[in-house]
Amino acid sequence: MAVTTKATIASFGGKLLKLSHNAKTTGCEMSFNLYLPPQAFVSGGQKVPLLIYLSGLTCTADNCSEKGFFQHGASKKGIAVLYPDTSPRGLGIQGEDDAYDFGSGAGFYVDATLPPYDKGYNMYSYITEELPATVFEAFASQIDRERVSITGHSMGGHGALTLFLRNPGKYKSVSAFAPITNPINCPWGQKAFKGYFGEDNQEKWKEHDATELVKKWKGPLNVLIDVGTGDNFYKQGQLLPENFAKAAQEADIKGVQIRYQPDYDHSYYTMATFADDHVEHAAKYLF
Amino acid sequence: MAVTTKATIASFGGKLLKLSHNAKTTGCEMSFNLYLPPQAFVSGGQKVPLLIYLSGLTCTADNCSEKGFFQHGASKKGIAVLYPDTSPRGLGIQGEDDAYDFGSGAGFYVDATLPPYDKGYNMYSYITEELPATVFEAFASQIDRERVSITGHSMGGHGALTLFLRNPGKYKSVSAFAPITNPINCPWGQKAFKGYFGEDNQEKWKEHDATELVKKWKGPLNVLIDVGTGDNFYKQGQLLPENFAKAAQEADIKGVQIRYQPDYDHSYYTMATFADDHVEHAAKYLF
Repeated sequence: MAVTTKATIASFGGKLLKLSHNAKTTGCEMSFNLYLPPQAFVSGGQKVPLLIYLSGLTCTADNCSEKGFFQHGASKKGIAVLYPDTSPRGLGIQGEDDAYDFGSGAGFYVDATLPPYDKGYNMYSYITEELPATVFEAFASQIDRERVSITGHSMGGHGALTLFLRNPGKYKSVSAFAPITNPINCPWGQKAFKGYFGEDNQEKWKEHDATELVKKWKGPLNVLIDVGTGDNFYKQGQLLPENFAKAAQEADIKGVQIRYQPDYDHSYYTMATFADDHVEHAAKYLF
Repeated sequence: MAVTTKATIASFGGKLLKLSHNAKTTGCEMSFNLYLPPQAFVSGGQKVPLLIYLSGLTCTADNCSEKGFFQHGASKKGIAVLYPDTSPRGLGIQGEDDAYDFGSGAGFYVDATLPPYDKGYNMYSYITEELPATVFEAFASQIDRERVSITGHSMGGHGALTLFLRNPGKYKSVSAFAPITNPINCPWGQKAFKGYFGEDNQEKWKEHDATELVKKWKGPLNVLIDVGTGDNFYKQGQLLPENFAKAAQEADIKGVQIRYQPDYDHSYYTMATFADDHVEHAAKYLF
C-alpha cells in the first residue's frame, strides 16, 4: 500500500500533499490529496481526526483543494482532510470518457455489477476500505483512524450520505453540499445506476439511494446539508432534497438540518462560503 | 462606459459579478470581476471602499476570484474587491499569444511605447484611470471612489507597488504577494520592458521598477509583502525582494514589512492562506 508523493504544498500553516497509489479495488493508479493541518506536525502531539471530502461529477482531488476553502477551518480545528478522485482513470473501457456524468469522473461511489464497468468501477469499496486503509497506514503517526467524518458535493454529497447511512458507526458525522439525495428518481442517478447496475436491478439501486436508506435509519442523524436556491441542478430536479427531508420526517429521524441558501449556485463559490460551517459540524463529533 | 454583466454569483454573503466593458485604452472588450460585500447591499447603508487585486502572469480575473479567498476577509470588513484582467485580449498583434510571460496575459501594468504593442497594451492607464472610472460610475451608489487600496501577486505585485509609488495619495495602502520588485534586474522584467519600451529606453524601465521608485519615496510606506521561501521564482531571482528592502532601507523608508513565509510557494495556496492578512492591512487604511 505504498503511497507516492507528487507534491507538498504549504497551506494554512499545514501541508497539502498530492499523492497517488496503485489501488487494487479500481485496478489503476489513483491520485488523491491529503491536507495535514499544523497540529499534525507538533512533535509528540496528538493524532488528528480525518474529514473525507467526496467531489462531484468531473472533478479530481484538486478542485476542492484549490477552491473549497476547507483548509481554512481544518487548520484551526486540527482536522486532516482527504480529497479522493471521483473514479478510476485510464482503464481503457470503451466509452468511459464519452460523457461528463458517467464513467470517468463519475464513479458515483458504488461498486459496479454490470460489465464492462464491474472491472474497476468500485469506488464504494475504494472509498470505504482501500483508500482510508492506505492513508491510515502511511500516516499512522499523524492521523487517528478511529475519528473519521465524511462530507461531499453533488455526486459526492450522494456519496457522503449513502456511505454514512450504509455504515452505521463508521463515520462520526456527515454533511453535504447540494447532494444528489434521491438518485433513483433523477436523471443523473438513473443514468449512472442503469450503467453500473443494470436497469432491472432496482434493489441494488435502492441500496445506494439516500432517500431510501434514510427510511431504515435508527436514531438521530445529525446531518448538515446546504443547498443553494440559485443552483440550476437543484432547479432541474437532480438533487431532490425535499424527497430526502420528507422521507426522514416520515421515519421520524431527528437532526436533519437542510439549509436553503438564497441565490447560491452549484459552484465552489458556495463550498468556499460554507466550508467553515461544515468543518465546524464535523468537529462537533470528531472532538 | 457601459458595463455588461456576464454572471452574478453569491459568495460569502455578497455577490461576485463577472463583468466586461469596451475599453478605450486597450482597444478591446475587457473582462473583469467585482466582489460586492454584503455591506454594499444594505439599503441606505454607507458606500464601501475598494481593494484592487492585480493578477500575475497568465491569469484572468477568475483565478483569484476562485482561489484567492479575498472574499472571505472582504465580506467581514465590508470591502469591495476589483479583479481586472492582465492584458488586452485578441488585438491580433502578431506573436502576442506566443509566450506566457509577454503579450497577452502579461501586460505588466505599463503603457507600451514600442510598436506594435503601443497599440492597446496600455494596462497602466487602464488600471489607474479607465477601469476604476468605469466601476465608480456603474456602482456609484455602492462604492466609495475616495477610498481605494491596491494589492497583487507576482507581476500583479509589481503592478501594485509601482502604481502606488508612482501615484502618491491615489491609493490608501499597498500590499503584495511574491511581487516582482526589481524588474529591470530580472529575466521576466527585462523581457517585458524590452518588448514594451525598447532595449535603449532605460529611463522608462526605471519609471516602472519598484526598487528604483522607492528610492524617491517621501515619508512612510506602510507596505505588507509576503514571499514564500519555497517559491521557485523567488529562488530563481525573478522577485528580488532583498533589492527592494535594501533600497528602502538606504532611503530610510519606514513601514516596509516583508514576511518570508517558510515553504510557501508561488501558487494561490499562498494567497488563500494570507489573503485575510492583506485585507486586514488594507482595512487599516480604508477605514
